[in-house]
Amino acid sequence: MKLIITKNYEEMSTVAAQHVLGYMYKEQRVNLAITAGSTPIRMYELLVLQVKERRYFDNVHFYNFDEIPFVGETGYGVTMKNLDRMFFSPAKIAQQNIHVLTGDNYATQDQRIKADGGLDMILLGLGADGHYCGNLPGTTAFGDETAVVYEDATPEMKEILLQEVGGIPEKRPNFYVTMGPKSVMAARQIVLFATGSHKAEAIKRLVQGGVSEAFPASLLTTHPHLTVIIDEEAAALL
Amino acid sequence: MKLIITKNYEEMSTVAAQHVLGYMYKEQRVNLAITAGSTPIRMYELLVLQVKERRYFDNVHFYNFDEIPFVGETGYGVTMKNLDRMFFSPAKIAQQNIHVLTGDNYATQDQRIKADGGLDMILLGLGADGHYCGNLPGTTAFGDETAVVYEDATPEMKEILLQEVGGIPEKRPNFYVTMGPKSVMAARQIVLFATGSHKAEAIKRLVQGGVSEAFPASLLTTHPHLTVIIDEEAAALL
Amino acid sequence: MKLIITKNYEEMSTVAAQHVLGYMYKEQRVNLAITAGSTPIRMYELLVLQVKERRYFDNVHFYNFDEIPFVGETGYGVTMKNLDRMFFSPAKIAQQNIHVLTGDNYATQDQRIKADGGLDMILLGLGADGHYCGNLPGTTAFGDETAVVYEDATPEMKEILLQEVGGIPEKRPNFYVTMGPKSVMAARQIVLFATGSHKAEAIKRLVQGGVSEAFPASLLTTHPHLTVIIDEEAAALL
Amino acid sequence: MKLIITKNYEEMSTVAAQHVLGYMYKEQRVNLAITAGSTPIRMYELLVLQVKERRYFDNVHFYNFDEIPFVGETGYGVTMKNLDRMFFSPAKIAQQNIHVLTGDNYATQDQRIKADGGLDMILLGLGADGHYCGNLPGTTAFGDETAVVYEDATPEMKEILLQEVGGIPEKRPNFYVTMGPKSVMAARQIVLFATGSHKAEAIKRLVQGGVSEAFPASLLTTHPHLTVIIDEEAAALL
Repeated sequence: MKLIITKNYEEMSTVAAQHVLGYMYKEQRVNLAITAGSTPIRMYELLVLQVKERRYFDNVHFYNFDEIPFVGETGYGVTMKNLDRMFFSPAKIAQQNIHVLTGDNYATQDQRIKADGGLDMILLGLGADGHYCGNLPGTTAFGDETAVVYEDATPEMKEILLQEVGGIPEKRPNFYVTMGPKSVMAARQIVLFATGSHKAEAIKRLVQGGVSEAFPASLLTTHPHLTVIIDEEAAALL
Repeated sequence: MKLIITKNYEEMSTVAAQHVLGYMYKEQRVNLAITAGSTPIRMYELLVLQVKERRYFDNVHFYNFDEIPFVGETGYGVTMKNLDRMFFSPAKIAQQNIHVLTGDNYATQDQRIKADGGLDMILLGLGADGHYCGNLPGTTAFGDETAVVYEDATPEMKEILLQEVGGIPEKRPNFYVTMGPKSVMAARQIVLFATGSHKAEAIKRLVQGGVSEAFPASLLTTHPHLTVIIDEEAAALL
Repeated sequence: MKLIITKNYEEMSTVAAQHVLGYMYKEQRVNLAITAGSTPIRMYELLVLQVKERRYFDNVHFYNFDEIPFVGETGYGVTMKNLDRMFFSPAKIAQQNIHVLTGDNYATQDQRIKADGGLDMILLGLGADGHYCGNLPGTTAFGDETAVVYEDATPEMKEILLQEVGGIPEKRPNFYVTMGPKSVMAARQIVLFATGSHKAEAIKRLVQGGVSEAFPASLLTTHPHLTVIIDEEAAALL
Repeated sequence: MKLIITKNYEEMSTVAAQHVLGYMYKEQRVNLAITAGSTPIRMYELLVLQVKERRYFDNVHFYNFDEIPFVGETGYGVTMKNLDRMFFSPAKIAQQNIHVLTGDNYATQDQRIKADGGLDMILLGLGADGHYCGNLPGTTAFGDETAVVYEDATPEMKEILLQEVGGIPEKRPNFYVTMGPKSVMAARQIVLFATGSHKAEAIKRLVQGGVSEAFPASLLTTHPHLTVIIDEEAAALL
């Protein structure tokens, strides 16, 4: 594991953006799976400045790694809406370079990625409970590839799904889909980033704790090419 | 995972030898950790024919990944004696290319390998109980690096250690050392091979079962670059 | 450059076969361009034994890098006939894994290879005049990609073409096609092999001479990943 | 070749800085050879902001690839003085991470770099005459490794050397040292950048011309991993 401790959120975002860019400057096709959420907001702002309307990134393909559909809506779910707003739209990424994981096609996600040449890098956030992608404690096992997780997977799942769709009961789905631990580990490089003191416990657990399904991200520490980028607040307990 | 099913032990040994040779033909330094035991006997016979007195392999360095010392003896333990007899001596590998793990230096094994540039490949056998290296069920956790395992780690361990030193009580040590799951996963490539119908259950468990510390090798299926080489008998239950 | 000096033709052929096999054992698609001619005869015999009917090589794709058509014949030219007889047929390589360069499609060869992901390795013989593929002195320039070479390229070319088609004037074409120096250098790895005392001067020139279009293979010595495999007779003047 | 055309000098500098950073974020040791001169001024300003006092780059080692000594001075020559002022000093690179090529140690430069694991990347500027490093037309041949070039190598050389040392005759040396074409091609990746309309002819020659020692950089177009970064003015004749 390469551990990078940055001074603050701005530096963390800059370093994460540089990582992503570092993978994009290839001549051959590049496949990146990238994260939605709040951690990457500033990173995507920085990335958009570098990527927008730049034809020399036409070789880069993007994948989302989880999705929560809105009931009664066609089009993107929670994750893709978020990625689209933060990155794909402002960076003007061409549709043919965006490979969408949905509730309909999740069963072939691993196979499609493999046929595309595999993921060069997957960029992950870290939940306080140790989750990454949709791999929350109790929802997936280390051996799982891309999977569907139902509302009864854990006691809190219905509430989580409700919050994800903005608290509107009519829009709450009874499932989501996610690349599983085995799918994520298949990437040639994993980059995980986290910011803030509310992540400090999780980072301590990640770096110093053992490997256990109770803390899903712990598996990632066994990947031969993992980079962890955190700010000083997230590193406070190390 | 790349799964290679060969017709028999001879083909398995040939394919395994070709794998090892494939990593050795580099200009820069190459670091390989290789396995002792009965599975590789024929593979080493084939390798010796190709490697002996060939100066163009001077760039290749070898590591043992576990060791059981003989009480009352100086010099090699069970693993290195075995590797020396099967490969290092007949292949005339130079001493400076052999990096010995012992009960004395295990605490620095991971750090030394990292300073040497990391392992390009680790070649592993598979036990019927799912063990590889000295990672027997109940002895190490997924998060462990190179570690010492004591005789009281499991109920059977004293007996296992006794058998390993030839059944001679005076030579039985009260511990062994082994690279742990995390150390093994840090290799850039993992090759695991198995032969015979008595391994068929373990192979089925490896390929189709989930990931669990109860079957240590299951973790390896999450490595991004794993090759499994087995003969038809070992593949019988797939 | 990694220089491998083997005892004799048999060892050279074995080492060359091991190189080729070392590239074939990948999970992802592998693209190899391989050579016809007399040098590789024994190597292909060895390869056929390892490759024939082995499904675990379904990921490997093969390319010929030059071709001399027979006038008045449809079907393969000199190079592909030779490769087919020595390797593709006896090894039972599937048609969809064989990518044929012809007089008709040479203009798109570089572009097709690039779209396929590029060549992982190109295996080359060496002519006494320093040629490799169809890059004879005076026919191509270092900056050329795949090109057509006409019968008037050099004074000897008509005679060379005649000999290549078996000395039958009616079958002699007025051109051949070849991947050029730049196409060959684009491969991620280059392996060049040579055998016998009649190649000793050329090997000396390759290893110790400078880089000049008068000796086409000299360019290859500037490739970052070149392996040269020769027997003692070919190495006699080093 | 990956050709990146940027809008202007600022974008070219940003993209070049991102390239360099992309290579630096590794866990293992990274070896970079970097260029002095005027083209990289802004790039180094950007790099210093990202690199200064950041411990997570302790794995990165830097090499200069040419040097012009000052007569009568100890300490750095023209290149290292320039690199030190623009980058090493403001970025506070540790001395043990800087590997200095001098008139005294040039004969072992290639061997030392090889022993260090080879160059991961070399960053080059491009002269209007097609030179890179100290490989001016008429001074080195494609087959040369690191070499000394004397004042009588070309008719203009005495004047060039005089200008390089600030026009002070007493400081003018009668030679300089440079990594040669073969040394540069041995790097795993080559990045070449150029800015401004006065480079447009050279860029046209590089991209569309053939390979010839009369235009030294033309050889680089045969490297399997070359990236060229230029602004619109430098691209004007493409």
